[in-house]
Amino acid sequence: MSATIHVVNPNSLEAVTRGIDEALQPLRLAEGPRIECHTLKEGPPGIQTQQDVEAAIPPLMRKVASLEPDAGAFVVACYSDPGLHALREITKKPVIGISEAGILTALTMGQRVGVIAILSASIPRHLRYYGAMGVMDRIAGELPVGLGVAELADRERAFLRMAEVGRMLRDAHGADVLVMGCAGMASLRQQLQDDVRLPVVEPCQAGVAMAMGRLMLGWSGA
Amino acid sequence: MSATIHVVNPNSLEAVTRGIDEALQPLRLAEGPRIECHTLKEGPPGIQTQQDVEAAIPPLMRKVASLEPDAGAFVVACYSDPGLHALREITKKPVIGISEAGILTALTMGQRVGVIAILSASIPRHLRYYGAMGVMDRIAGELPVGLGVAELADRERAFLRMAEVGRMLRDAHGADVLVMGCAGMASLRQQLQDDVRLPVVEPCQAGVAMAMGRLMLGWSGA
Amino acid sequence: MSATIHVVNPNSLEAVTRGIDEALQPLRLAEGPRIECHTLKEGPPGIQTQQDVEAAIPPLMRKVASLEPDAGAFVVACYSDPGLHALREITKKPVIGISEAGILTALTMGQRVGVIAILSASIPRHLRYYGAMGVMDRIAGELPVGLGVAELADRERAFLRMAEVGRMLRDAHGADVLVMGCAGMASLRQQLQDDVRLPVVEPCQAGVAMAMGRLMLGWSGA
Amino acid sequence: MSATIHVVNPNSLEAVTRGIDEALQPLRLAEGPRIECHTLKEGPPGIQTQQDVEAAIPPLMRKVASLEPDAGAFVVACYSDPGLHALREITKKPVIGISEAGILTALTMGQRVGVIAILSASIPRHLRYYGAMGVMDRIAGELPVGLGVAELADRERAFLRMAEVGRMLRDAHGADVLVMGCAGMASLRQQLQDDVRLPVVEPCQAGVAMAMGRLMLGWSGA
Amino acid sequence: MSATIHVVNPNSLEAVTRGIDEALQPLRLAEGPRIECHTLKEGPPGIQTQQDVEAAIPPLMRKVASLEPDAGAFVVACYSDPGLHALREITKKPVIGISEAGILTALTMGQRVGVIAILSASIPRHLRYYGAMGVMDRIAGELPVGLGVAELADRERAFLRMAEVGRMLRDAHGADVLVMGCAGMASLRQQLQDDVRLPVVEPCQAGVAMAMGRLMLGWSGA
Amino acid sequence: MSATIHVVNPNSLEAVTRGIDEALQPLRLAEGPRIECHTLKEGPPGIQTQQDVEAAIPPLMRKVASLEPDAGAFVVACYSDPGLHALREITKKPVIGISEAGILTALTMGQRVGVIAILSASIPRHLRYYGAMGVMDRIAGELPVGLGVAELADRERAFLRMAEVGRMLRDAHGADVLVMGCAGMASLRQQLQDDVRLPVVEPCQAGVAMAMGRLMLGWSGA
Repeated sequence: MSATIHVVNPNSLEAVTRGIDEALQPLRLAEGPRIECHTLKEGPPGIQTQQDVEAAIPPLMRKVASLEPDAGAFVVACYSDPGLHALREITKKPVIGISEAGILTALTMGQRVGVIAILSASIPRHLRYYGAMGVMDRIAGELPVGLGVAELADRERAFLRMAEVGRMLRDAHGADVLVMGCAGMASLRQQLQDDVRLPVVEPCQAGVAMAMGRLMLGWSGA
Repeated sequence: MSATIHVVNPNSLEAVTRGIDEALQPLRLAEGPRIECHTLKEGPPGIQTQQDVEAAIPPLMRKVASLEPDAGAFVVACYSDPGLHALREITKKPVIGISEAGILTALTMGQRVGVIAILSASIPRHLRYYGAMGVMDRIAGELPVGLGVAELADRERAFLRMAEVGRMLRDAHGADVLVMGCAGMASLRQQLQDDVRLPVVEPCQAGVAMAMGRLMLGWSGA
Repeated sequence: MSATIHVVNPNSLEAVTRGIDEALQPLRLAEGPRIECHTLKEGPPGIQTQQDVEAAIPPLMRKVASLEPDAGAFVVACYSDPGLHALREITKKPVIGISEAGILTALTMGQRVGVIAILSASIPRHLRYYGAMGVMDRIAGELPVGLGVAELADRERAFLRMAEVGRMLRDAHGADVLVMGCAGMASLRQQLQDDVRLPVVEPCQAGVAMAMGRLMLGWSGA
Repeated sequence: MSATIHVVNPNSLEAVTRGIDEALQPLRLAEGPRIECHTLKEGPPGIQTQQDVEAAIPPLMRKVASLEPDAGAFVVACYSDPGLHALREITKKPVIGISEAGILTALTMGQRVGVIAILSASIPRHLRYYGAMGVMDRIAGELPVGLGVAELADRERAFLRMAEVGRMLRDAHGADVLVMGCAGMASLRQQLQDDVRLPVVEPCQAGVAMAMGRLMLGWSGA
Repeated sequence: MSATIHVVNPNSLEAVTRGIDEALQPLRLAEGPRIECHTLKEGPPGIQTQQDVEAAIPPLMRKVASLEPDAGAFVVACYSDPGLHALREITKKPVIGISEAGILTALTMGQRVGVIAILSASIPRHLRYYGAMGVMDRIAGELPVGLGVAELADRERAFLRMAEVGRMLRDAHGADVLVMGCAGMASLRQQLQDDVRLPVVEPCQAGVAMAMGRLMLGWSGA
Repeated sequence: MSATIHVVNPNSLEAVTRGIDEALQPLRLAEGPRIECHTLKEGPPGIQTQQDVEAAIPPLMRKVASLEPDAGAFVVACYSDPGLHALREITKKPVIGISEAGILTALTMGQRVGVIAILSASIPRHLRYYGAMGVMDRIAGELPVGLGVAELADRERAFLRMAEVGRMLRDAHGADVLVMGCAGMASLRQQLQDDVRLPVVEPCQAGVAMAMGRLMLGWSGA
């Protein structure tokens, strides 16, 4: 079996992919799985609406199909996990969504999960997803930073809002662990954790770590 | 506002659309909303897998967008509710999914809902959806008839299996209301109800009835 | 089958019945079901406590029994759905409760439902009901306007408090759809929706729309 | 405060009241609360349907009101807990329903509760109630013995069916504690427990035990 | 069977045990079960962390084993219910945990339970427990007073903080019944109830009342 | 930070530890974390009852404390996750329980999880745990093989029973993914998956994979 984990950023922003790629450095080992990050050039420039989700799925499926023969596992690096279950039909190799992985990892780090979303419009979609996962009782709340994917480029501004939202999730909603509800912000994870004093899950890292385990164990679908 | 409810069958089978169209006859009134059924010619020939769901969404979105200026409301006539939330973004007019409508209507007709699926492969997808709807506690179970969309054309065979599955949902799972987990089988609804002696919900009819109410009340998104 | 939907207001206030009646105008079609509204003269003057609920049930059951031979369907027009399941035993014709219908309709218009109650004393009763419906995960919260049924006659005051409560449900509880937790306030629905900028469900309208669908489809109990 | 617990059997069957009365013998202490059992003469002859429940409530409320000045606490001795929340409004003294008390007590004796109902028609009503209580995750299942209240007079036949149903709840539904979903069968409790080898809760006894605690502690409503 | 209920305070503070002992006075009847309170001398001086919970269990199990031959029932008088399920293995006699009993009793006194914890570090542990009990939908929230077991000795200060937390649970979280999430504070119960105007459950009293019922009824494990 | 994951088998059976150790071979990489397996010599000879769980915790805590200075992460290799939350207090390094990890991993491989327990007495304990995790809606069922830890040494017999139980979880309970509810049976995983044709999760492997991700990412508690 190939030892490559293909991480596909389903939006077309190279900068996001680069941020993801850097964040995965600690998971690269000389003899371990290779980790390759891809930008979905045909994807939308940021996934904010459900339409963006749907628009990303067909090219994402083609991308995964093209990578499949040479793949060990896949990670869909968008917090809406676009196409996750369709991808699990086109390959028996592990396919991990970062939202799923982020939440599940958070469940081992705290009892009540607070999620920092980028935009409020995404929250109902995420809540549907947590419902589908059957974990609503563990969700303390999800609040938006209210910044577009582009605006998030101003890291300082992004950080200040994230920290503010994180503290509100902690103090008013009782969260004791946080999940960053987006991809490409990994460089702020430690700083956020230090500021809010709660463990913080970066979902791309969580997703690739899960994929790595599945790949090394050779656990594919039955 | 237009008084037309556009019912889109997201698969390409005209026979299914015809079955839906006939089933909606009781909902047509001289002065009431017009009800027009459409076959999604670019859709997959039957929606069984998650891939089929995803394949149906882009042409479905185009179809809805093209009908939008002249529409009062939409019904997505496939039990997987493909693209439902994306469609709700591209129009403020009511968009109803038949799975959602079928389950919600069933909640008013019994306490524990049994769903008759066509294929077992669809069941995890439906369960994720019921989870997203937050109604898992009301689901007695979902069991497959194990026949393809094409095979269902043999109505007698289809009926016998549906009745068998319906009785199992009633007797072993405690269901007191049934939902037909597919479109285009409305002609068997009454017969099934008589045979199993539980109320049976046909989801296309339930969906159009809901859309009709929303349209007549002028309740669009905020 | 008779084509009349009998809408019974279980309190004795004619003004409430008139408000309901006007609100149902959009659902009346020349060839469609007739919609007749009734005041339960023997009912309590407003249903605020559980005792009021219980006091309304025996006369309500008699009223429904007397109307039954000439009825197509029934709607119980009080947000506590008094006697709903007993009424479903005395007639096989559709009986819809406006609380049930209001919540279920809201589930198709948003992910997290906020309910505007009249009095705080009703909230535990409503929560028990949502629990019985199995939809607690979809309830963002329910807050009272704190006005008696009589005081609500001052429409301006009523509106201001409702809008205030609606904004609190939206901002502090994360509601993205609202339900008016009372009957007879339909004239404020659109204004409330415009003010709070969330879709607003008026439960009597939602209930009659549901009854209409059931009646036209001929879906009675099994 | 009076030290009398009034136990009201809301059906008109004296034999049932006698059965309850005998079952409460172990809870009577020289200096402890008096326990008085009452038959609701105006109540229905057995509570099987929701209509029976509703029919019992007005006379039950009158009965409780008449006993109130001289009461320490009340127990409603019917497994449908008719009028429970209305009664809690007309007196601040403890009012315990045997269904609520039976289930809550069972939660301390096993992880998955199986309920033995008399008639299948009662099961949806009970499930609505467990949903309102928020304990559905702890309910393994509820199955009917399929005998009327009258037929249950044949104790041997009743026992055989109860034991059969209890074993099915244990073996097919995973129950590890049983609740007798009716009043007046206490004399079979120990025998049932011995036969099925699961702890068995008799709800009248559970209800009076709870009322006794509340009364001795002087815990009334706030 | 012995008629003694052994109440074991699993921490080593005699003052806490004395507070518990006094609180149980109303439950003592001349012919009723004897109620004996024990301090677990080998237990930790206060149970705040999960480590404290674990540290208490082995000596608690020895204590219960030594008392068993002469016991009618046991109550574990610490709001974390340490060792509850292990103790239920070493004796068939009733073993009641005060957290379980406190929450279950509260479920009969209100719809939404607010818990006043001592320290915030205990809250995730309690939430895990409510999840294990399957009652999360009934929990309005749990908030800490933020005082150590020792500091609580200043009754006035303790009361003021408890009342403040109780009002916040009522006003911001919608609680309509409160549980004191600790042992040994029973002397403040009535005062708290009067101040916050919600029923307040003191869990040691609730636990012994439950044990008393079980003991008098002779309900042991199967 | 040390790169060693200490896997502690909390029972005293060396054979179980050896089985675990072999199963972890695929997770060992030249430059990756070291994985060291330990037998808890002071632990009970197999963890079947809640008493066994409690008996294992104090020596397990001492063991973890002694290994802590030289540890990167810990895995508790018993399907009851003994002491998990106490261990998370005594070290900020990642501590993973195999039950938690097994279930969470299964959530990414199917929608309804079936668990194969060793003994039926463990099932209520596991269900409490799934409730605490908030994932009950995803649990299809848990059934016992009914063999002691010792008897499981007969691998063929163990396999036959496990496969039988797995098929029952699949066919009667609707499971589409299985978790082996024990440690030390990893050598049967692939064979079981092939036989039952559902993905099978071995929890020790799942747990160490999770710990590895956490360790490589440097995600400790906040």
